[in-house]
Amino acid sequence: MLAATTRRNRLALVQKPAPRLKPGWALVRVRLAGICNTDIEILRGYHNFQGTIGHEFVGEVARVASAGDKKWIGRRVVGEINIACAGLGFRQKELCSYCRRGIPTHCARRRVLGILGHDGAFAEFLALPILNLHRVPVGIPDDAAVFTEPLAAACEILEQVDVRAHREACVLGDGKLAQLIARVLHTADLRVIMIGKHANKLRLARLAGIETAQPGSRVSRRENAFTLVVEATGSPSGLTMAQQVTAPRGTLVLKSTFHGAAPVETWPIVVKEIAVVGSRCGPFRPALELLRSGRVNPRPLNSRIFDMRDAAEAIRYAQKPGVMKVLLRSPAKN
Amino acid sequence: MLAATTRRNRLALVQKPAPRLKPGWALVRVRLAGICNTDIEILRGYHNFQGTIGHEFVGEVARVASAGDKKWIGRRVVGEINIACAGLGFRQKELCSYCRRGIPTHCARRRVLGILGHDGAFAEFLALPILNLHRVPVGIPDDAAVFTEPLAAACEILEQVDVRAHREACVLGDGKLAQLIARVLHTADLRVIMIGKHANKLRLARLAGIETAQPGSRVSRRENAFTLVVEATGSPSGLTMAQQVTAPRGTLVLKSTFHGAAPVETWPIVVKEIAVVGSRCGPFRPALELLRSGRVNPRPLNSRIFDMRDAAEAIRYAQKPGVMKVLLRSPAKN
Repeated sequence: MLAATTRRNRLALVQKPAPRLKPGWALVRVRLAGICNTDIEILRGYHNFQGTIGHEFVGEVARVASAGDKKWIGRRVVGEINIACAGLGFRQKELCSYCRRGIPTHCARRRVLGILGHDGAFAEFLALPILNLHRVPVGIPDDAAVFTEPLAAACEILEQVDVRAHREACVLGDGKLAQLIARVLHTADLRVIMIGKHANKLRLARLAGIETAQPGSRVSRRENAFTLVVEATGSPSGLTMAQQVTAPRGTLVLKSTFHGAAPVETWPIVVKEIAVVGSRCGPFRPALELLRSGRVNPRPLNSRIFDMRDAAEAIRYAQKPGVMKVLLRSPAKN
Repeated sequence: MLAATTRRNRLALVQKPAPRLKPGWALVRVRLAGICNTDIEILRGYHNFQGTIGHEFVGEVARVASAGDKKWIGRRVVGEINIACAGLGFRQKELCSYCRRGIPTHCARRRVLGILGHDGAFAEFLALPILNLHRVPVGIPDDAAVFTEPLAAACEILEQVDVRAHREACVLGDGKLAQLIARVLHTADLRVIMIGKHANKLRLARLAGIETAQPGSRVSRRENAFTLVVEATGSPSGLTMAQQVTAPRGTLVLKSTFHGAAPVETWPIVVKEIAVVGSRCGPFRPALELLRSGRVNPRPLNSRIFDMRDAAEAIRYAQKPGVMKVLLRSPAKN
């Protein structure tokens, strides 16, 4: 099968065998895959990952390893990207402390689709434990379902923060993840103000009912203005502005996973007693429900679809100014 | 009266009139004052404060402004350092949003003893609202009572974090505040491991029942080892090690209020979904109770007492390697 792999920090299109299945796993024929900034970071060498990249996808189950899972064949699915103890075949009494506590996204043994120790979604086929799969409800088009993973990451904030304690939220950044976060917070009845640099991206947010401002504007310079702030700029300097606009005893959610150090003064966190909450992967179920109900419509965030054979070009395109989500269509035939 | 003031980032000993009292305020004759790293930061110009420095003290009430407060005269007291709306004379309906929510330490109008807009404790007399004062129980010697303010700051952690959810805690740093924090966490039945650079300071901690290790030791290099970590190194680079040793979904309390930026990678906070909690001033009552009961004995942390007239020498001494708490004895006569 065709796969877009990273080799010495460069993208290489290769032909390789379809992945083998362990008991309880499924082979998924990829329909669409989304390019995330993390994929670009991996190509820069930051995660030290060698293999097929990509972790955002929608596909359909082509084959299962265990007879009991046959009902999954043909189902349209999305998949959680962390493969934890249970998925790796460890039994109940062998689980790591995180899996035992019910937080498999932090599994000590985890592999992560297209990021850590497991081949990813920029390929005709990928393999995941059935445990990780979620059926996609009828009515969610492929080019919306492919957003389930990043939308789940946005939903994670609702698990970590009691948003009912807040009337408004500030989202720093106007990129793909920031856009999804702002929409999710908006569905939780918060007034949402996005601060971003790009007029065309801010326009997209306004169409979804989100207020916007640019850095340097009056809103962005209001010290202590927000009790809830989400840093999703994808830039190491975002933290400084985030600390400024967060109110004393406020909550500051960190979502950017860029690699790279920026000089940061941390005394405002201490003096204002800010609660900083790191936030990564999230729950798929509420994300699928937001897509099914139409309360979040990610499709306006799609910039362009490339054939997977043009993955290199697609990744270059995804890094151009103003471009939002770029999708890859797998050539795998049904 | 004698006062040690900052002028253009230098310490100047001056004679000035005793402070005037507003209704509801008390004049406190300072007995002992403690030198804190914040005082040294102020002398470096970081807080932009002009006036009498010092905020750790024990003294006795010499005069009150309101007849109803006469019972306070002669009482031995310590004092909370944040002067909030109520202390500044604002009435109930004029309170700022923070005072209304019951968190006067974050009062939008606050002045802070010896730090922000209000003359401090390195003087024969200081003025504070009666509201800010706490009577010192008999049996706590002056050279222990003078630790109430930093000990309260250590107790703040118990207000912010449910320590019962943890079995052990790691304290990064071996300085004055780190020592108090380790002792407070130890009273909460946690196994406490202090990681610090200075053999003589670590020895002090061990005498108080705290385990210790040096940076570079096996303990300090154990990734994800602790579910509760307190960063109190007073150094911008402490945050990096703190992120390393904090477990996924763990809690990292920031206590260092140094000014100065260090290059920090924040992705571990996100990937591990760490909750970072900024922590500043704390409650005096539990601090006094720890001193009264003897559950925390800060006196071994005292390095030397200087006469306040030698404040300049004392502050130089306080910055020498290995020196812990340096106290100033006020020449004010009873």
